[in-house]
Amino acid sequence: MKDEILERAADEEMQVHTDLALEARESCKEEGIPGVKIEESVHGASQVKVTWVEVLDEQGEAAIGKPCGSYITLEAEQMAVHDEGCHREISEALAEYLRKLLGGFGSPRSVLVVGLGNQEVTSDSLGPQVLNNLRITRHLEKEAENVRCVSGIVPGVMAQTGMETAEIIRGIAAETRPEALLVVDALAARSVSRLGTTIQLSNTGISPGSGVGNHRHSLTRESLGIPVIAIGVPTVVAAAAIVYDTVDALAELLEAAGSGNAAEAVDGMSLPERYQMVRELIEPRFGPMYVTPGNIDERVKLLSYIISEGINQVLA
Amino acid sequence: MKDEILERAADEEMQVHTDLALEARESCKEEGIPGVKIEESVHGASQVKVTWVEVLDEQGEAAIGKPCGSYITLEAEQMAVHDEGCHREISEALAEYLRKLLGGFGSPRSVLVVGLGNQEVTSDSLGPQVLNNLRITRHLEKEAENVRCVSGIVPGVMAQTGMETAEIIRGIAAETRPEALLVVDALAARSVSRLGTTIQLSNTGISPGSGVGNHRHSLTRESLGIPVIAIGVPTVVAAAAIVYDTVDALAELLEAAGSGNAAEAVDGMSLPERYQMVRELIEPRFGPMYVTPGNIDERVKLLSYIISEGINQVLA
Amino acid sequence: MKDEILERAADEEMQVHTDLALEARESCKEEGIPGVKIEESVHGASQVKVTWVEVLDEQGEAAIGKPCGSYITLEAEQMAVHDEGCHREISEALAEYLRKLLGGFGSPRSVLVVGLGNQEVTSDSLGPQVLNNLRITRHLEKEAENVRCVSGIVPGVMAQTGMETAEIIRGIAAETRPEALLVVDALAARSVSRLGTTIQLSNTGISPGSGVGNHRHSLTRESLGIPVIAIGVPTVVAAAAIVYDTVDALAELLEAAGSGNAAEAVDGMSLPERYQMVRELIEPRFGPMYVTPGNIDERVKLLSYIISEGINQVLA
Amino acid sequence: MKDEILERAADEEMQVHTDLALEARESCKEEGIPGVKIEESVHGASQVKVTWVEVLDEQGEAAIGKPCGSYITLEAEQMAVHDEGCHREISEALAEYLRKLLGGFGSPRSVLVVGLGNQEVTSDSLGPQVLNNLRITRHLEKEAENVRCVSGIVPGVMAQTGMETAEIIRGIAAETRPEALLVVDALAARSVSRLGTTIQLSNTGISPGSGVGNHRHSLTRESLGIPVIAIGVPTVVAAAAIVYDTVDALAELLEAAGSGNAAEAVDGMSLPERYQMVRELIEPRFGPMYVTPGNIDERVKLLSYIISEGINQVLA
Repeated sequence: MKDEILERAADEEMQVHTDLALEARESCKEEGIPGVKIEESVHGASQVKVTWVEVLDEQGEAAIGKPCGSYITLEAEQMAVHDEGCHREISEALAEYLRKLLGGFGSPRSVLVVGLGNQEVTSDSLGPQVLNNLRITRHLEKEAENVRCVSGIVPGVMAQTGMETAEIIRGIAAETRPEALLVVDALAARSVSRLGTTIQLSNTGISPGSGVGNHRHSLTRESLGIPVIAIGVPTVVAAAAIVYDTVDALAELLEAAGSGNAAEAVDGMSLPERYQMVRELIEPRFGPMYVTPGNIDERVKLLSYIISEGINQVLA
Repeated sequence: MKDEILERAADEEMQVHTDLALEARESCKEEGIPGVKIEESVHGASQVKVTWVEVLDEQGEAAIGKPCGSYITLEAEQMAVHDEGCHREISEALAEYLRKLLGGFGSPRSVLVVGLGNQEVTSDSLGPQVLNNLRITRHLEKEAENVRCVSGIVPGVMAQTGMETAEIIRGIAAETRPEALLVVDALAARSVSRLGTTIQLSNTGISPGSGVGNHRHSLTRESLGIPVIAIGVPTVVAAAAIVYDTVDALAELLEAAGSGNAAEAVDGMSLPERYQMVRELIEPRFGPMYVTPGNIDERVKLLSYIISEGINQVLA
Repeated sequence: MKDEILERAADEEMQVHTDLALEARESCKEEGIPGVKIEESVHGASQVKVTWVEVLDEQGEAAIGKPCGSYITLEAEQMAVHDEGCHREISEALAEYLRKLLGGFGSPRSVLVVGLGNQEVTSDSLGPQVLNNLRITRHLEKEAENVRCVSGIVPGVMAQTGMETAEIIRGIAAETRPEALLVVDALAARSVSRLGTTIQLSNTGISPGSGVGNHRHSLTRESLGIPVIAIGVPTVVAAAAIVYDTVDALAELLEAAGSGNAAEAVDGMSLPERYQMVRELIEPRFGPMYVTPGNIDERVKLLSYIISEGINQVLA
Repeated sequence: MKDEILERAADEEMQVHTDLALEARESCKEEGIPGVKIEESVHGASQVKVTWVEVLDEQGEAAIGKPCGSYITLEAEQMAVHDEGCHREISEALAEYLRKLLGGFGSPRSVLVVGLGNQEVTSDSLGPQVLNNLRITRHLEKEAENVRCVSGIVPGVMAQTGMETAEIIRGIAAETRPEALLVVDALAARSVSRLGTTIQLSNTGISPGSGVGNHRHSLTRESLGIPVIAIGVPTVVAAAAIVYDTVDALAELLEAAGSGNAAEAVDGMSLPERYQMVRELIEPRFGPMYVTPGNIDERVKLLSYIISEGINQVLA
């Protein structure tokens, strides 16, 4: 029955949204999802927990709600605290997996790095901040043939530009002809515990509705003609998701306390139905609301250093 | 019984926090709170709704959870949209009431304006942004005797300075001897509908735990020796408050649906008990979480212009 | 002989650079330059001094060192001081002339506004700051047919992007198809007295070597296929220019003091030779140096408001 | 005769201003200045050139134009280029000498770090940027007794606050009682070649007229009652200084070319006379003008990392 609900949810685009394949996977609780291969490991001295989710076919796509491809998640509580040694190791882990994904596309020589998001909104400023610390090399004269050529752009969000991010990037890519795109973005997670402690790499590009901000329309190999690798960090949770979790926990509590009827009433709803109910309750007129920790500025700053350092190791 | 609960809540500091006296008043649903005088009016062409809450005595303090003094709230949906004409009228309304509050202190000639909050966090950057557009005059040579003398400071938050904001302001005030303090700050509201559409003026200073950020310790006449007027705008709602509201609405829904037991179970809890339960459910390890609208950058920018313009009209 | 020198200078691109047609004109001291039409007027209550320089043909291009087209300069000392009433009038003057230039291109309905320059360098941040206050409308649903559709972009500078600004803009324009481009940029002037007190409008686009930053390659009707209007404000003077002026003044002083030989020695050099000598003296290893006033942040902020307000009046 | 001129210059405060003791020393060309001890060395692998100028007595003060105390200058071209390994070594050199100066004051346990300057003006934003990356610890609970306690403040400049920086710092220091002050500031150099490639440490505090911005009034042990260590980096050269140098070089050129009279005329002026003449020529109405390199944003960013890292090594 769970499967049915999930399939329906995927069809109806009504499921609880998460940008993390890891979390999408978790919502399918049983072991062994058909069409999805999962490998977990621990990386080096930094004890970064690595989960490699490979969506293999349409069945996997339906189960996870993400297109076919690789999704690598690095998790470490230490991303959120000042610890330079540890950050260096996380950067190295990131560099290693970024190199693998680029290798899968023939190690493209020229890469356009895109810092998605709104630099005026702290929780959405990860992309622009990473670009700030990137070594840009495309404009420098290069003799050596095997050196990579890195360009970068912070396109802004639609309220600032009046244009879809995808329009801007398509235009720039058509004109400057990079061999690959590397997109850095702030994501929305389902769980508060992932905020600022998780990095996701993927090789499937960015699709409608992803990210915190308003950068609809795809940035994918199909739409651009070049491979698109995405690096994302969850910095917000949709308010609806938090409420939903709490209601869920509340239902369990009530059940434990013997108030069976209500728990059943809530339990009887499908996952999408519940989420929709919660959204209708809290977002009547104000559009989407986001939940973010109080020290989001420090977390985004730390993570932008870790990520730009990782990218610099691979590309510069 | 409601009164009992509210009194207990006030004692136990466990009530649902709001920085707005208006909302504190609303939670006492019955008409006529002893020790509190309330006047509502509509201001001029801009149709700003003005609510003047006067907390008169200890009984009023207990009911509202705010110290004795004046709390003036200006409400207008148009604060959140681009409409220059309308913004000018709101600035004028603000100027009018600010002038009244200053008048109550003998229209002090020299004023130190403090922009509280963290300029690195969009929702907490209202104070610093207002200071950015203020006309500072203290350092200019003045012949005319009746001109006001305005100084300003953005003290930062404790994570940036290691010092309590109150320590910094006390030190600067002792050295530069302004006759009054005007504090601008981002506030936490209870209701999402107030975010970016409400301005509160008060003449009671700022007390522990107020505001979004971490500026504990009082900025009051008692602690500083000079009157303190505060201008605040709600820019966040505590995540717990949103969940709480939803749970409340959910309980009503369940009740309507006949799932009596659960509704009763929730209903049987006191307000503070419910809020505490919700907090424990969503803030296990991560400290306070805040809910903020997606376009918070535009709202804070618009409001900072409205407020700095209002202050400039009175002080410059 | 002066003419000879100037023609040679134009050929050799060695003349003292200025982005202002007004100043280029001034360096031709005699009245009546063939191929150039000049009209001076004073605009409205604000007493803005307006100089309309029309470069008519190749002879004019050679004399002024600027391509054929219109160059309108608005000058007012009050741009540099806080005076809101006055700024509104300057915005209106700007709007009036911007409307004229757009009218010359058939009043295009959709305009892409480009904020050139580096927002990290105060004196080069005029373009990005203007974009910050612009009303962007392209993404809003519009029923009315006669409403303009405004998009905007801050492309960054080559050190940040690795790409020529012209590449970025060409790509975006090809993809989003605006009917005209409006480019806002900080300029280099010859004279310190013009810093922050002059606005130049032109309808000839932007050509190599213009501006403070590094945005080479043309943004012109030829290169983009759509008309390009530029709004610029001088915010720096090349250090070499200031030295050059001083050396010039020094030579005059020496001459007056009877130290004939040296004065003659300097006098014997052509203008370009002198400038080149000065550049070689002060820029041996460090690349171009710029001179900027201490309060450049306030001047750029005031001017960005004036300009965005003027553009909003015309386009929004 | 040179000595006479220099003494007069010191008396008349008309000499060519530099914030670097190193440069003040250089203008006394002969070896062995009475009252001044100078030691030069090279630091470790990074090949940082270290010059320790010790002003011993009043005679030294008169010769150098700086109060008695230690002035340590670190010079390295690599400060201005991306080279992380090298930057780490410079941070270590800085940490070593900072530790020595603090040791001279008994290694104070609690330090207030002040980021002087205007964060809105790139060349003046070094102090605020260093504070951005500092580890602030005063507000954290500390069990260990031997841990330092670091607080920090960015006071802003007088145009923003209406207050003297010294007033603000005096007030905060009186209230929070640090045992020492560490002041970070952007400086004005005499020579373009020092911009962004030199760090000066001193233990004499900051005196009137120093720095780029407008932070007059002393921050010294006399005025505050606690020792004051200053870290400064030259980011601008006064425009007058550049012109002056060029005129000087020009005079030499003319002399070489045999135009004796003019050279003599210029040569006959004293240093202060020449500088004054140049200032009068270029700063008639516009106040001080500053010269800064085009890539000042990158240089200030790199240096702020190097310095905050050095301070963190010592204090955190």
